[in-house]
Amino acid sequence: MATVTIDYKNVTSNAVGPEHGLTEQELSVRLKRSGRLLEEMASERATGGLAFLDLPRQEGTVEAIGRFVERKLDGIENFVVLGIGGSALGAKAVYSALLPPFYNLLPKKKRGKSPRVFVLDNVDPEETGALMNLLSPKETMFNVVTKSGETTETLAAMLSAVELLKKAVGDRWRDHVVLTTDPEKGFLRQLARRENLATFDVPPRVGGRFSVLTPVGLLPAAAAGINIKEVLAGAGAMDSLCSSAAPAENPACVCAVINYLMDTAKHKNVLATMPYAYALKDLAEWFRQLWAESLGKKLSLEKKVVNVGSTPVTAVGATDQHSQLQLFNEGPHDKLIVFLEVESFRNEVNLPALFPEDENTAFLGGKKLSHLIRSEKRGTELSLLESRRPNYTIMFSEVSPRIVGAFIMLFEFMTAVAGKLYNVNTFDQPGVAESKVATFALMGRKGYESRTEDMLAKVNGVAPEGNTVRCEV
Amino acid sequence: MATVTIDYKNVTSNAVGPEHGLTEQELSVRLKRSGRLLEEMASERATGGLAFLDLPRQEGTVEAIGRFVERKLDGIENFVVLGIGGSALGAKAVYSALLPPFYNLLPKKKRGKSPRVFVLDNVDPEETGALMNLLSPKETMFNVVTKSGETTETLAAMLSAVELLKKAVGDRWRDHVVLTTDPEKGFLRQLARRENLATFDVPPRVGGRFSVLTPVGLLPAAAAGINIKEVLAGAGAMDSLCSSAAPAENPACVCAVINYLMDTAKHKNVLATMPYAYALKDLAEWFRQLWAESLGKKLSLEKKVVNVGSTPVTAVGATDQHSQLQLFNEGPHDKLIVFLEVESFRNEVNLPALFPEDENTAFLGGKKLSHLIRSEKRGTELSLLESRRPNYTIMFSEVSPRIVGAFIMLFEFMTAVAGKLYNVNTFDQPGVAESKVATFALMGRKGYESRTEDMLAKVNGVAPEGNTVRCEV
Repeated sequence: MATVTIDYKNVTSNAVGPEHGLTEQELSVRLKRSGRLLEEMASERATGGLAFLDLPRQEGTVEAIGRFVERKLDGIENFVVLGIGGSALGAKAVYSALLPPFYNLLPKKKRGKSPRVFVLDNVDPEETGALMNLLSPKETMFNVVTKSGETTETLAAMLSAVELLKKAVGDRWRDHVVLTTDPEKGFLRQLARRENLATFDVPPRVGGRFSVLTPVGLLPAAAAGINIKEVLAGAGAMDSLCSSAAPAENPACVCAVINYLMDTAKHKNVLATMPYAYALKDLAEWFRQLWAESLGKKLSLEKKVVNVGSTPVTAVGATDQHSQLQLFNEGPHDKLIVFLEVESFRNEVNLPALFPEDENTAFLGGKKLSHLIRSEKRGTELSLLESRRPNYTIMFSEVSPRIVGAFIMLFEFMTAVAGKLYNVNTFDQPGVAESKVATFALMGRKGYESRTEDMLAKVNGVAPEGNTVRCEV
Repeated sequence: MATVTIDYKNVTSNAVGPEHGLTEQELSVRLKRSGRLLEEMASERATGGLAFLDLPRQEGTVEAIGRFVERKLDGIENFVVLGIGGSALGAKAVYSALLPPFYNLLPKKKRGKSPRVFVLDNVDPEETGALMNLLSPKETMFNVVTKSGETTETLAAMLSAVELLKKAVGDRWRDHVVLTTDPEKGFLRQLARRENLATFDVPPRVGGRFSVLTPVGLLPAAAAGINIKEVLAGAGAMDSLCSSAAPAENPACVCAVINYLMDTAKHKNVLATMPYAYALKDLAEWFRQLWAESLGKKLSLEKKVVNVGSTPVTAVGATDQHSQLQLFNEGPHDKLIVFLEVESFRNEVNLPALFPEDENTAFLGGKKLSHLIRSEKRGTELSLLESRRPNYTIMFSEVSPRIVGAFIMLFEFMTAVAGKLYNVNTFDQPGVAESKVATFALMGRKGYESRTEDMLAKVNGVAPEGNTVRCEV
């Protein structure tokens, strides 16, 4: 049975003291109130809101993806996602949790029939150039993913990919491109119609960072042979649970309330997620966007300036014990640490009893590596407790398609509840518009001429001599 | 000519206002005072302190590494670093800046004579198991790196590697291992003597997180064909500069003073580094340890409880504009953003003028990808300016061995100056001892028996029912 267990005794005032911990009273008052938020969510949902919650029950998507994978990926050795932000992080999270580590380095026969999977989510000329050089176009499928169909970085990558394909396969470039975008609107949808390209839809009412359970995340996963039906089933089970459980037994409410109170009542403006499993690392990175972009807001729902949102940080256990733990234990009391742990690993390493004459290795001999990483986590937890740093643990019984789906839905649901606690619009992102306009102006895009001069003046500025240091080395 | 330029006009009160920006007065007073800190550093150095500053002039290391690479790596296809924290991050940073992207996926002939390079810096059983399965032991060199010679995670990985080797090549396992450790002390040094293993020294007076310019970082780099002499030359040039320039022209002082004042006087407890270049990403991750572990301290030099240190965060440009920028622009005024930029890329992508009929792609046609990423950075910078978020830019003329050396020394020197500003011991890490002891106790290590029972009681605790949520999905 797949389970998710949240143990939050280490955020209580009993565990870390009243200055940094939450009293039973503080917790229970807020949890009780969050019952009302669940009701709000239910009624929004009943009137067509919160569409991401219904994705586990979407019809026909799994089948359509299955047909595409079966018919169109024959002979395809590389499946390349061109996307950024919500169009990249979810896909990465799902496949890196569920494929073996070093998957792209495995010889073909160990990958079964499945292609290597890449995500290009930047416009660095060195990275982009190297990837395009690496791929044999004839064996490559490019999945261009942008909900709006108009994301500049993604379109730039697409131009580069289509040029590569045209040179290699001419008019058959169309067989090597599949677009994931809005069903009606945007440039990509127009292009698909005109050029007769394969497409998948992003449901219009699902925002980019909540779109992993649409073809945005599901198509790359299925291409790599992952059982996406099980991913959706896990997500559906978690949604049922979070939609019906009373706040105190509701994992989404419990996590949202703790994260919110720690930030607003206990001044922990850094939310550090520490996965103690390689498989969960990119899920933590996915959550980093979800939390930051959903809750980092200037305005309250009443349009008052509030400037809220804690800063999500990922620290990988045990690795970052040797990088960030010193700061977590001894620095300012400004952090809440959330451990992500796995009960049962899919592979085990039994440590041999070599060099038993020395105590540094003797105690390791005959032990399992999972025992070590688990002990490291508990050691870290204890040290945080001793230094009165609040922390809690989300334990997953294993990493499976079902659990990955449950993970995604838990964090999405939790973020939606947190948005209500922070009293902000969880689903917009007005704070990125300005930089887009500036980029268009600086690139000389038509329609932005009036901004260009203004922008250039600002950027180039008049840097007083005293504000620049230049060195030759 | 290789150059490093710091433009910090956007941290001034002129740029972002007096609440979030520094007045000329604030800056110049602190900069003047930091002249005294440079003098202190010079005198510590004269009496044998700050040994990391002298690494560019170490004798014989480059030659010894060169001989090893030439004689011992023939037929080696995989060079695998087993290390964690300071024994992993520096190596990763150097080779990922200087090798082509996707290097390990390149066919053999495109890698020249050089092996693939891996760093295993965790004890996850799935990751470790997968890596050991991936490698052909006969073609693999394991570089075991731990300064103390006694780091548990690294020794666990070594046990696993040696077992793999023994099974495959018997007694010749010794030819596939090279140890980087203290010249005299520790288990690894003893093992090397007894088993007659190849070794390199970590100078005893150089701390782990300051050790990248020792064989810790240089051996893996040289193994991958990187010109480490040039890396050291760049570091040496930056040291000369930082050791002699007046504070206001001194890049280490300017950066240290800004970072320090922003945290302590302007309440920016998050230090976000945004590299706008794939090549600089792992250097930013390396810096994350350097800053966090050096400055995240409970005690001042006078042993007063101070709990200081800003939290370093990495956000990759342009990617994280679609993940973190919303929070950076609209969230709390708790961040300083440091841009890392590159003037000249080593590869270029020229965007074709496909689909010119649509404005979404028309403005990209005929442009260079470097123009786009540069405009994205400037767009982000402008948007931060509009929302009064202080930021500054460190511009590198290119990414070359010389610049990578200069980068490393700049950030190390800056961290040492910052340590003096924070008035803490930059070079210790007392905050990680507790978790190590706990881990030993939980693993049943000899000598820790008295702690074990105590620890187990604490970890297992008595979790009140109300502090656990368990769900089946």
